[in-house]
Amino acid sequence: MTDIAMIEAAAQRLNGHARLTPLLNAPLLDRIAGRRIFVKAECLQWTGSFKFRGAWSALTALTPEARRRGVLAYSSGNHAQGVAYAAALLGAPAVIVMPTDAPAVKIANTRAYGAEVVLYDRVAENREALGQRLAMERGLTLIRPYDEPLVIAGQGTVGLEIADQAAAAGIGAADVVTCCGGGGLTSGIALALEARAPALRVRPAEPEGFDDTARSLASGTVERNAAAAGSICDAIVTPQPGQITFPILRRLCGPGLVVSDAEVLRAMGLAFSHLRIVIEPGGAVALAAALFRSDLPQTVICTASGGNVDPDIFRKALDLA
Amino acid sequence: MTDIAMIEAAAQRLNGHARLTPLLNAPLLDRIAGRRIFVKAECLQWTGSFKFRGAWSALTALTPEARRRGVLAYSSGNHAQGVAYAAALLGAPAVIVMPTDAPAVKIANTRAYGAEVVLYDRVAENREALGQRLAMERGLTLIRPYDEPLVIAGQGTVGLEIADQAAAAGIGAADVVTCCGGGGLTSGIALALEARAPALRVRPAEPEGFDDTARSLASGTVERNAAAAGSICDAIVTPQPGQITFPILRRLCGPGLVVSDAEVLRAMGLAFSHLRIVIEPGGAVALAAALFRSDLPQTVICTASGGNVDPDIFRKALDLA
Repeated sequence: MTDIAMIEAAAQRLNGHARLTPLLNAPLLDRIAGRRIFVKAECLQWTGSFKFRGAWSALTALTPEARRRGVLAYSSGNHAQGVAYAAALLGAPAVIVMPTDAPAVKIANTRAYGAEVVLYDRVAENREALGQRLAMERGLTLIRPYDEPLVIAGQGTVGLEIADQAAAAGIGAADVVTCCGGGGLTSGIALALEARAPALRVRPAEPEGFDDTARSLASGTVERNAAAAGSICDAIVTPQPGQITFPILRRLCGPGLVVSDAEVLRAMGLAFSHLRIVIEPGGAVALAAALFRSDLPQTVICTASGGNVDPDIFRKALDLA
Repeated sequence: MTDIAMIEAAAQRLNGHARLTPLLNAPLLDRIAGRRIFVKAECLQWTGSFKFRGAWSALTALTPEARRRGVLAYSSGNHAQGVAYAAALLGAPAVIVMPTDAPAVKIANTRAYGAEVVLYDRVAENREALGQRLAMERGLTLIRPYDEPLVIAGQGTVGLEIADQAAAAGIGAADVVTCCGGGGLTSGIALALEARAPALRVRPAEPEGFDDTARSLASGTVERNAAAAGSICDAIVTPQPGQITFPILRRLCGPGLVVSDAEVLRAMGLAFSHLRIVIEPGGAVALAAALFRSDLPQTVICTASGGNVDPDIFRKALDLA
């Protein structure tokens, strides 16, 4: 199970390989929000999302023999790119199982990093089953996107950096709002902050209709989403919280936050205007919550967890900039 | 005159007030360019450009009495915002003279930082004369955008950071391509690198039709532009190199580089896709040169010097992303 020692060990392996991303803020954005907002800009991470951290953490822990045989991942695109690039840097073959409706930029980039991409239908097929079959057939090691302790440890290094950067910025107590899909980033950050900055409380943010984590936290048991697709927030559309991640979230997180697609696009537009960063929809749910939800404290830190967005979606955000 | 000691003193005053901006790169961008490109992301600086550095450097050197009376600046928008925000933080009144054709976002933000904005016609009126008259009438201290040693010293802190970050990235020799208007940023960086990293050579980049610095460097004497307006690169359209800056450029810089508006928009689109940062046209000329000019070495560092761009212009860049 992931603990602070495992996160610190991942931070050691990531040192000099992951980018220490900045914690950004802007006075004019704070004025719109009516509170202080700090944005952990993981869209500036290698491959454009925090997923590189978990991928590197997992791949550098493989035996040389397993690394030589290669790895497999299933992903809507950010975990795909993180695994593909980490594998390329480490000389390991990578097979990535991606949904047919993943953003074109994510599929193209995953291939550009040198991975073999296998497409599947998000509604009709089960990506876990497909991934496990391919892994078995080819002797590949499956790198799960969130229900994997080494991946959670890698994502938890975002939490170590937030703890340091919040202290440097003089932030005492705050809510830390995370973009939450399966819960790998959220649980990793929560574990890191429990050990390093317990006055920072984690709150998962999700899009309307895909608020499985918020409902699961409210009921105390794992709840599923009714739909499997249909959100602009492709990066964080998962059927339900993870088996490993949910117990961590239940122990450490405050109530979940839910935002609309329109609020997500508006948050992307405001990040364009005031922070000059590119955030994808799934990476903007936390900023949308920080901007537009009222049940938050005067100081909020949020993750901008990814920036891999097709131009056509970004144009809609510019209409609201 | 600005020297390395003055730049280091500015760095002391800026410490904890300016943001240490990241030096970004991306493997897929390098593949497009056919060389290694590192981008100093000053679009992530306070107020969205490096101009905050020079403004803070100049304003913190004022006497308490001068600061109380206030400051005046003329600017197409980035120096305006830098001075307006620095003045607001320091409790000094600010009057900003801006051209009527400045991007709406820059005028709006300058006002939002609390400054009084006075508009003028870029072609028909002389902003220097207007600025000096207003300064005289109201007892304001004029903060020149580039021909001012304290401002050059502030912009030179970008060069100190580039020297440190290049060393940390293992970069030995490289060209450092800068977005060049009046030459404040370019001369400041050149002075800092002369002292700290002499293997890094500065090359100013400009848009076609406004390549006064490139022509002046080639002829050895100050050359003017034929037109006063008409480029999408509003931030760096100046009539000629500065009186203080040009001798520094002539002594320290390699040949200038010139790019087309189409190349600038394409560079903005590639920065969107691969670096996930928002760059304005005038802040993208250096990246455009790094991507598309052939007379550059295998490793290039370039400034992304500003990110204040209206959505309508950014849409054109997305068409080329």
